[in-house]
Amino acid sequence: MEGEANVSIFGEIEGPSATREGMGLIKLKVVGMGMGTADPRVVMHEMDSAEIGVERSDRVSVVTEGVPHSAMVCLTSTLAAPGELLISEGLMASMGLSGGEEVTVTFCPRPASVRHIRRSMDRSPLSREEVSTVMRDIMLSRISPTETAAWLTALHINGLSEDEVLHVTEEMVASGITLQFDRGPVFDFHSIGGVPGNKVTPLVVSIAAASGLLIPKTSSRAISSACGTADFVEVFCDVELGAERLKAVAQETGGALAWGGAMNLTPVNGAIIETLYPLGIDPPDLMMASIMSKKMAMGANRLVMDIPCGPGAKVETLSGAKGMAQKFIALGERLGIHVDCALTDGRQPVGWAIGPGPEARECIMALEGHNGLQDVREKAIGLAGMILDMGGANDGPRSAERLVDGGEALAKFQEIVAAQGGRADLSSADIPLGREKAEVVSPRSGYVNSIDNKELVTVARAAGAPRDKGSGIVLEKKTDSRVEEGELLFTIYADNADRAERALGAAERLRPLKVGGLLLERTLRRPGML
Amino acid sequence: MEGEANVSIFGEIEGPSATREGMGLIKLKVVGMGMGTADPRVVMHEMDSAEIGVERSDRVSVVTEGVPHSAMVCLTSTLAAPGELLISEGLMASMGLSGGEEVTVTFCPRPASVRHIRRSMDRSPLSREEVSTVMRDIMLSRISPTETAAWLTALHINGLSEDEVLHVTEEMVASGITLQFDRGPVFDFHSIGGVPGNKVTPLVVSIAAASGLLIPKTSSRAISSACGTADFVEVFCDVELGAERLKAVAQETGGALAWGGAMNLTPVNGAIIETLYPLGIDPPDLMMASIMSKKMAMGANRLVMDIPCGPGAKVETLSGAKGMAQKFIALGERLGIHVDCALTDGRQPVGWAIGPGPEARECIMALEGHNGLQDVREKAIGLAGMILDMGGANDGPRSAERLVDGGEALAKFQEIVAAQGGRADLSSADIPLGREKAEVVSPRSGYVNSIDNKELVTVARAAGAPRDKGSGIVLEKKTDSRVEEGELLFTIYADNADRAERALGAAERLRPLKVGGLLLERTLRRPGML
Repeated sequence: MEGEANVSIFGEIEGPSATREGMGLIKLKVVGMGMGTADPRVVMHEMDSAEIGVERSDRVSVVTEGVPHSAMVCLTSTLAAPGELLISEGLMASMGLSGGEEVTVTFCPRPASVRHIRRSMDRSPLSREEVSTVMRDIMLSRISPTETAAWLTALHINGLSEDEVLHVTEEMVASGITLQFDRGPVFDFHSIGGVPGNKVTPLVVSIAAASGLLIPKTSSRAISSACGTADFVEVFCDVELGAERLKAVAQETGGALAWGGAMNLTPVNGAIIETLYPLGIDPPDLMMASIMSKKMAMGANRLVMDIPCGPGAKVETLSGAKGMAQKFIALGERLGIHVDCALTDGRQPVGWAIGPGPEARECIMALEGHNGLQDVREKAIGLAGMILDMGGANDGPRSAERLVDGGEALAKFQEIVAAQGGRADLSSADIPLGREKAEVVSPRSGYVNSIDNKELVTVARAAGAPRDKGSGIVLEKKTDSRVEEGELLFTIYADNADRAERALGAAERLRPLKVGGLLLERTLRRPGML
Repeated sequence: MEGEANVSIFGEIEGPSATREGMGLIKLKVVGMGMGTADPRVVMHEMDSAEIGVERSDRVSVVTEGVPHSAMVCLTSTLAAPGELLISEGLMASMGLSGGEEVTVTFCPRPASVRHIRRSMDRSPLSREEVSTVMRDIMLSRISPTETAAWLTALHINGLSEDEVLHVTEEMVASGITLQFDRGPVFDFHSIGGVPGNKVTPLVVSIAAASGLLIPKTSSRAISSACGTADFVEVFCDVELGAERLKAVAQETGGALAWGGAMNLTPVNGAIIETLYPLGIDPPDLMMASIMSKKMAMGANRLVMDIPCGPGAKVETLSGAKGMAQKFIALGERLGIHVDCALTDGRQPVGWAIGPGPEARECIMALEGHNGLQDVREKAIGLAGMILDMGGANDGPRSAERLVDGGEALAKFQEIVAAQGGRADLSSADIPLGREKAEVVSPRSGYVNSIDNKELVTVARAAGAPRDKGSGIVLEKKTDSRVEEGELLFTIYADNADRAERALGAAERLRPLKVGGLLLERTLRRPGML
């Protein structure tokens, strides 16, 4: 069927066309639908729609006081009487209607976006203006969720050109607000996530701010992970700052540890994520655009990216992580952001603690210089060192280490926490863990051969993470640890007994720490062989 | 980013996973949402959803009296109080709830269909069972319209394997009823459409039935064309027959001229078309499956296909039409249907009349042997001849011609019309045209160089086609006709003056008949050249 773009299903349907040209208008009386659909939607009688050449699944333009509003139409021979127009609640409100008014209804051609979406399906890259049109139509619900789903599916299958990624990023930025700071450059840090217990962000921000750099960091909450940075920082100070307060905190202290969602920096991303999530797709190019747009909106021009990789992390192979790093760097160049990337070990949790309270406590312990947190400390110092190098340090990692060991990083952390409404003398001992505990022991002697990150997350969520602030997991053993039968593998913390019980059940079913012998597999000579 | 299927957008979202394992259940009180969404949908408070590990855009299972119903969930901190579950109207009804009841709510994993849809995006063909699962979930609204849109977009972009086309066809058949006739073989005829004025179906059916073959033909109504076969047959007899009456008509007369939509033969196609139409896509493989499924449902095992081709028709090139023909033949073989295809001239209308009344009248005139309808007669005889050949005739076209010229075809036509509630002595003079007329004349002398089919359809629809039964167009000139300035090109018929006026306006703006000199273009020597 090559070359037959014009073939129509069911022998009847045509694509977007001008066949409704020359059709008229009709005046109808408004009736509230009592139905709060997401999209603007109207219902009209078939006789009225025939009058103006409107078919099912068309759009109509509804005009009141000279202002047209576009809506998807449903046809009926029962729900609406001839002469009536049922209007969905949101549209009633945005048109300022209460029912009983007369409106003018005409056929409304498909928005240009539908043609652009069709082009994305056919692997034809969109221009800056076309990307902008589609994304504005998504944000303003001028196209339907099914049309949005079709576009995102096409992007998932066909990918985006480099230019398109740039256009999408810029349009995401344009959809919201952009912060400006009195001084520059503005530094930022981002981890693409996927590794439980990755509590390094407050350390990285504190070290960089202690060295005199401006780093107003926003973080996210967990969606399906056990705990986002915002989820555990919230244990000890405010994270829903709003743009003005965030600016004030950053200009006062050099740093900030805010929840990005509170500022609605790039609102179009919300509409996109609502469609992507149920489909279970996540085009990497859109992830890049989304991350970079938030950095743009924060006014950042120096960025260090943490890309954890390894089996079980979001990026499984080193070559995949390198390819991603190069794309981030190239996109950063076009956006005027200097990007450096760190490929980090994502095979098992960072540190021992997972969940809001446990991670908050361990994060502060690492700043306080407690023993046994070597990997947390090393990762934070390595990443902060890269930021310091970007800022012109002679030996960033060395400087970062000195700021931790000399206590300046902890002092800066307490200063930021105080500016965000927390205690100025906050210590790790102030952070309570859940009052309910359950211990998971090894069913056998051997070695921890591997840890399944996703299964650990399941157990932590069953315990109440990220909502119950005391809930989570504290590991006793990690990969390659020797363990005896009956020895403690990890402790579950929860805010109530039910959830502790539930998490224990999940842990016993899943066994996220895989304990085996050093002898992994035996291949035996079968009788008769040789 | 090759090989990174696991990268997640926004650093936060995971695909379908088992992370919600080990989550519990909650009991909530039912409140009617007063909202008639297409999908089953519930709204619950964030604290309740957290309790059972449910996130926005997840599904929940709502259980009453032991029966689980799946629904998409919206989270709120305002619309529903803790302990309440708002349920959409359709779901309330299908669960037999009226409000106030207690139901049990649990996290519901994504249906397997969502994984299969993801596979279609990734160009991995689905098995028979997987196709069946997805299509049943579409039909029963177990997956959302956005998920359906994602699947159809993936099929549009990636195409279907031959096996998948077969599975889709068989699943379409399985979704509805299948007719069985007392005698066989059952013949059928189908035109993929796209050419205005293609009124040959009643002639083909009458000739084939007059020769003694069984041909219970169902046709469609226009969606965006000017007139489907069912739209003009309805001018002179019933077309909404229902399965039992259609069988009776066919077993009595050998033929039938019914509207397929009245029988709901393949109901899943309705759900698919609802999604395809707004997207403006129409995957050719789905069109094939749809057509063949309807033939299967009618019990057909001998089929002649009419594939009009040419610029402006649905298939633009002869090679495209040949490719399509081969695919139909191959699919037919696997379904046990003997398919022959006719590639016909689709460059301009068949005959002179477009629209319900005009086409009905011209169709009967061709059976009556009126002059000036050579192309209608030839096309009908050619196609009917192929059917007769399939039925074992020595020289099908010759036999078909004799049945027309001898009056047997007209008599059979009147017999079928009478069986469908029309006049047994129906003649073309019984068909009235619209009482309002508007004449469109040539603005210059010259030749009709081409006719734009789509523009003609626009004019006919502006005149009221396909709903107003008298409305349409009667051409006076066709391609290559000599025409003088001011000479009549075509007449518009309408049932009221407004629509005649509107159609005339469209005709004057569009000028669907392109009149030029024989000299098509002049390339002139510019001063200074040579």
